[in-house]
Amino acid sequence: MARKLRMGMVGGGIGSFIGDVHRKAAAIDGMIELVCGAFSSTEEKSIASGKDLNLNESRCYKTFEDMIHKEQELPEDVRMDFVAIVTPNHMHFPPAKMALENGFHVICDKPVTLTLEEATELETVIKNSGKLFALTHNYTGNSMVKQAKAMIAKGELGKIRKIQAQYLQGWLSTSLEKTGQKQAAWRTDPKRSGIGGALGDIGTHAENLIEYITGLKIEEIAADLGVFGEGRVLDDDGNMLIRMENGAKGSISISQIALGEENNLSVRVYGEKGSLEWHQENPNELITRWLEEPKKIYTPNGNGLHAEALEVSRIPSGHPEGYLEAFATIYKNFAKHILAFNTGETIKKPDYPTIEDGIRGMKFIYAAVESDKNNTAWTKI
Amino acid sequence: MARKLRMGMVGGGIGSFIGDVHRKAAAIDGMIELVCGAFSSTEEKSIASGKDLNLNESRCYKTFEDMIHKEQELPEDVRMDFVAIVTPNHMHFPPAKMALENGFHVICDKPVTLTLEEATELETVIKNSGKLFALTHNYTGNSMVKQAKAMIAKGELGKIRKIQAQYLQGWLSTSLEKTGQKQAAWRTDPKRSGIGGALGDIGTHAENLIEYITGLKIEEIAADLGVFGEGRVLDDDGNMLIRMENGAKGSISISQIALGEENNLSVRVYGEKGSLEWHQENPNELITRWLEEPKKIYTPNGNGLHAEALEVSRIPSGHPEGYLEAFATIYKNFAKHILAFNTGETIKKPDYPTIEDGIRGMKFIYAAVESDKNNTAWTKI
Amino acid sequence: MARKLRMGMVGGGIGSFIGDVHRKAAAIDGMIELVCGAFSSTEEKSIASGKDLNLNESRCYKTFEDMIHKEQELPEDVRMDFVAIVTPNHMHFPPAKMALENGFHVICDKPVTLTLEEATELETVIKNSGKLFALTHNYTGNSMVKQAKAMIAKGELGKIRKIQAQYLQGWLSTSLEKTGQKQAAWRTDPKRSGIGGALGDIGTHAENLIEYITGLKIEEIAADLGVFGEGRVLDDDGNMLIRMENGAKGSISISQIALGEENNLSVRVYGEKGSLEWHQENPNELITRWLEEPKKIYTPNGNGLHAEALEVSRIPSGHPEGYLEAFATIYKNFAKHILAFNTGETIKKPDYPTIEDGIRGMKFIYAAVESDKNNTAWTKI
Amino acid sequence: MARKLRMGMVGGGIGSFIGDVHRKAAAIDGMIELVCGAFSSTEEKSIASGKDLNLNESRCYKTFEDMIHKEQELPEDVRMDFVAIVTPNHMHFPPAKMALENGFHVICDKPVTLTLEEATELETVIKNSGKLFALTHNYTGNSMVKQAKAMIAKGELGKIRKIQAQYLQGWLSTSLEKTGQKQAAWRTDPKRSGIGGALGDIGTHAENLIEYITGLKIEEIAADLGVFGEGRVLDDDGNMLIRMENGAKGSISISQIALGEENNLSVRVYGEKGSLEWHQENPNELITRWLEEPKKIYTPNGNGLHAEALEVSRIPSGHPEGYLEAFATIYKNFAKHILAFNTGETIKKPDYPTIEDGIRGMKFIYAAVESDKNNTAWTKI
Repeated sequence: MARKLRMGMVGGGIGSFIGDVHRKAAAIDGMIELVCGAFSSTEEKSIASGKDLNLNESRCYKTFEDMIHKEQELPEDVRMDFVAIVTPNHMHFPPAKMALENGFHVICDKPVTLTLEEATELETVIKNSGKLFALTHNYTGNSMVKQAKAMIAKGELGKIRKIQAQYLQGWLSTSLEKTGQKQAAWRTDPKRSGIGGALGDIGTHAENLIEYITGLKIEEIAADLGVFGEGRVLDDDGNMLIRMENGAKGSISISQIALGEENNLSVRVYGEKGSLEWHQENPNELITRWLEEPKKIYTPNGNGLHAEALEVSRIPSGHPEGYLEAFATIYKNFAKHILAFNTGETIKKPDYPTIEDGIRGMKFIYAAVESDKNNTAWTKI
Repeated sequence: MARKLRMGMVGGGIGSFIGDVHRKAAAIDGMIELVCGAFSSTEEKSIASGKDLNLNESRCYKTFEDMIHKEQELPEDVRMDFVAIVTPNHMHFPPAKMALENGFHVICDKPVTLTLEEATELETVIKNSGKLFALTHNYTGNSMVKQAKAMIAKGELGKIRKIQAQYLQGWLSTSLEKTGQKQAAWRTDPKRSGIGGALGDIGTHAENLIEYITGLKIEEIAADLGVFGEGRVLDDDGNMLIRMENGAKGSISISQIALGEENNLSVRVYGEKGSLEWHQENPNELITRWLEEPKKIYTPNGNGLHAEALEVSRIPSGHPEGYLEAFATIYKNFAKHILAFNTGETIKKPDYPTIEDGIRGMKFIYAAVESDKNNTAWTKI
Repeated sequence: MARKLRMGMVGGGIGSFIGDVHRKAAAIDGMIELVCGAFSSTEEKSIASGKDLNLNESRCYKTFEDMIHKEQELPEDVRMDFVAIVTPNHMHFPPAKMALENGFHVICDKPVTLTLEEATELETVIKNSGKLFALTHNYTGNSMVKQAKAMIAKGELGKIRKIQAQYLQGWLSTSLEKTGQKQAAWRTDPKRSGIGGALGDIGTHAENLIEYITGLKIEEIAADLGVFGEGRVLDDDGNMLIRMENGAKGSISISQIALGEENNLSVRVYGEKGSLEWHQENPNELITRWLEEPKKIYTPNGNGLHAEALEVSRIPSGHPEGYLEAFATIYKNFAKHILAFNTGETIKKPDYPTIEDGIRGMKFIYAAVESDKNNTAWTKI
Repeated sequence: MARKLRMGMVGGGIGSFIGDVHRKAAAIDGMIELVCGAFSSTEEKSIASGKDLNLNESRCYKTFEDMIHKEQELPEDVRMDFVAIVTPNHMHFPPAKMALENGFHVICDKPVTLTLEEATELETVIKNSGKLFALTHNYTGNSMVKQAKAMIAKGELGKIRKIQAQYLQGWLSTSLEKTGQKQAAWRTDPKRSGIGGALGDIGTHAENLIEYITGLKIEEIAADLGVFGEGRVLDDDGNMLIRMENGAKGSISISQIALGEENNLSVRVYGEKGSLEWHQENPNELITRWLEEPKKIYTPNGNGLHAEALEVSRIPSGHPEGYLEAFATIYKNFAKHILAFNTGETIKKPDYPTIEDGIRGMKFIYAAVESDKNNTAWTKI
């Protein structure tokens, strides 16, 4: 008989955006329960957060080190199975490394680490630990993104020629970080965010989505980054050209100063036989175009889908699937993998992002920053 | 300190659509855990379903009577707090009545009962029990529906003049019930569905949405029901005119043979000062129109919303909220009410549908069927 | 060698909306030139209007009688070929009758006449005259409307089961007619408009579009008309149920008090094999749905169209066709017919609305008004 | 009293796409009549084309030289007023120069000439001739484009920070030019098209639209052009970064191999106070976003527009304006200017594109090609 997996969380205290998202996403499918956490940088806040989440106070830890050590000492059928890391970027690597080295699987928010060096080191840590590692590039969990990937993998679009991606937000149009808003504060701070601002926060999602959907690597990039917010040191905007390994060309536009945009992640892919278009803000449509046929629009659980898309839907077509459901799919697939791992069952790895995606993301950030410093020179990823 | 509420479920065994929806909706906010259930009409299936849900076998019951009796005997801090009823319509009333009379709160799918008589009797049962009762008219949980209601309540649209609602599906375009498909089978069977087919299944949602958003009652109805599927006895289509208590006029169109429609519930409301439009399949937009200003489009957690809309969003604007989140809002508000009830705290009733909505729905079904029999004569609700 | 047809106009003086539309529509294809007109009820205004249109003063007439008589006396290669009637409804029949009886073809705005009696008399006049008569139900000139009609005629949607049409405007939400606005004044005046208000002005378009697209007649109607504007005597709103000759059912909603709606004419048709949806405000899309295939969206001059749709497009796909182009298609087809008529060539009648459409429209108005008087009783058209 | 202006045409024989567009656009407003033309490279085809257009054979000329000479000899009240040039790019300069030097105004398709040298020479020719010159960057004629320009000019969006434009077509996805298709043949031939393929054909529209709407010049460009069609020598795709004179940054993506795209010209502009978005394929909407208010959508002749937008609409809001109407606005404004010029009246120049726009377009093409040759180096325009 299966059982619910037990999750411990690092970060995600009261007021956190992404911690709450991870908890809800983990809860939806009834496969995971939150049992402990080191939710905040102070013990007091961590306990308050844990209580708020109906946790036993004894399992609200003051630090992630504390959590990992104490949980290890608990009986096997009580202690956490895996750690979810939802802290700012600079606090991804330390808990991930320690958790893995102490026998826990890890699921971590993106970008995977503060630096590329950490990312490559983490890859080694994972390999040596023999444990599983997932990265929450959540948009790949969308039904229509799965359909897009499947269509291209099966050759329905033919050879890919052109790619356009954009990830536009407007929430940093004003100097929000000066108002004490926490989300803005750490994202604009290189010590906590790394060398990329918008690049790391949303650019990596765009990069990941392109490579996930097309199955092609971005080979080189020419970037023109913008720093529009007064006093900022990290990019809050970027316009980039890309060349893919197969000869396709394209562009990526990202911004957190695109005033009025909410969370406009979109991608268009043009092939020799067909093309497709997906918009995260209206995720329940995949628009496809063809040489001789009219435009066809696919919907989750709707007509004509591939199995890869059908299997992620939880509800009938016409019942909108949102951001949390896609996020939950990453957790569900990771949980399936852990369950098989625990029982020694050999299964095909369920579809979720891993350290490889994380390293690609870091290389993307580094290449874009380098290109920008060199006045937009083409730079290999 | 708060604690997770414990839920017992009636119906919703393996393969059920709506049972799974209820479970996921109940899980999202981390306030509720499923602890027991009588999931199916046979003990074997019920246990199999419960195990599949990681329940302890001892709490997988063969009947709802069994569940209610046995749970009552468990210690107070173990036994279920409330019962969720997710069976076909004819099996709503018996477990609801018994649960309430034995001290459990109840949340029930719609339409509330098989007959109007049952519905009015249930109202008495609820009153006498002193317990809480919620009905899952889930669409009222949408952020943009809350915004629509708030705008009208505050008079921003002026006096309402015209209303159009439609709830169009196409899944019964063919004789699906003859293929053994369970969802189709009971919905087309008057013994399990009641006197309304599409009327009960989706018409009540349209009726409820109209009355919820406008705060106005439908006074009378003139209905032309259709039975298009071969061999069917219940309506699978309906075109209706309505007159509201304030003099507004309008129409409701419902169908389960509107081929190709997935779950197209839409409503338009026109007032003397403004108007609005909402489409369930693209729920993250509320379109509003004005005498002298351009069209304005509201989004969940976006600019310019009323508190009623803001408080239901779990994620930032631009992150799509789907069907499950709206459904979860019904559960969340019901759970909040139970928690306050349990602690004796007096709070303003959180916003969730109740038996009154259920009785309105049954009266709507009855009036529509009667009008249709009388060649579309105007019939009071 | 072909030549430009010469058009005389009745009505459409300075400040007229629909007169200008007719002139532009007639001009687009270079097949017609305006040569004369009786543009207004006073000689002075008529001449001023004609001058404004670069007409020779000698051909700006004070009355339509004057125009018809004087033009008849001109040499055959100078005098007008046909008359375009763009006056308020009460002034359709007199000039149409006189023009036809004096040897001129006629193209007339809708509804065809003030009363049903006039319409049937006009049918006789046309027959006796041997001349051609066109009615400007302009929306049938849209490429996507042609495609919809062709798809249904070829059986692609199977037997039609359900129809929904709406024509919603908001421009009479306030008492515009009391401000001296001419368009509003005559449309709310039964002496000039007839027994239908919104019914005649826009309801007939909805009715015509339904019958045109489906090839089916509306058999009976149950109407609930609304008169919301203060002091109005004619309907400014209506909700109607319809039953088609083949057993299909449906509804029509019209309004001129649907605040904020601009010109929202939409139609949905559901068959046993497919369905379609068209919205006038976004005319360059025909949305179709299918049992087993994804939604397909057709565009003017785009992929997969029938010849009937292709032949009305003047520009490549992706170049939006607007209201005027569809209107122009009525003129173009009428002009083609006149050219063939003039040369004695026998051709298949080009596709444009005629007196039959006009009579159907009048019967629709009369049936709706009668049904409404009888408290929404089903009334044959 | 005004009179219709007389137009002579160079190019645009039977089968031409753009010639027909110009004729229809010129006809709509009743201000212009086509009186003569040199429609084709052979006398026979030119005459056949003219006859087809109901022209007198005597005014169907075999060459543009012939036309200009012969028309000059006609009486002033008969001869053409201006010349419309609708030939492939290499045949813009010669007839434009000759017409201007012989006293005729000229309206010309874009890009203005084959080479930048010709463009600058043409500027001198125009100045010396004292005649008027218009360039048909037709998209600037759209109501919503006028509104966008006016909003930015009035400071409503604040300082502009980010711009994205795309012009995507798919019609050259296959080797159409090898099939004998004329439109494809000359556009892929550098002798007739110039050094830019898609760059000249559609890239200049994107560039023009950006500069028109924002009132800002593109200062430099970094371009990565693509040549995907087998055997092609000119670009059929391009991805470009731009930097504006005020410090704004952005990107332009163009393609004629974006399979399935019809005529997707879109632009997004983000400022410090607001942002806007316009899509040519759905031209009757201008989407605007704001710091604290919900999204607002403007429509032609709808609520809240500036005079600049209102004055180009010919029909009420909700009646879609298409490609031809926008094109016609260029002709209308040019005609107004000629009429004033002819009568010696001094008026504010009506809003239509001129040689300055043409030179900007040529510089854009040249800078993009140079940047592409230098591996995407930033290049001044």
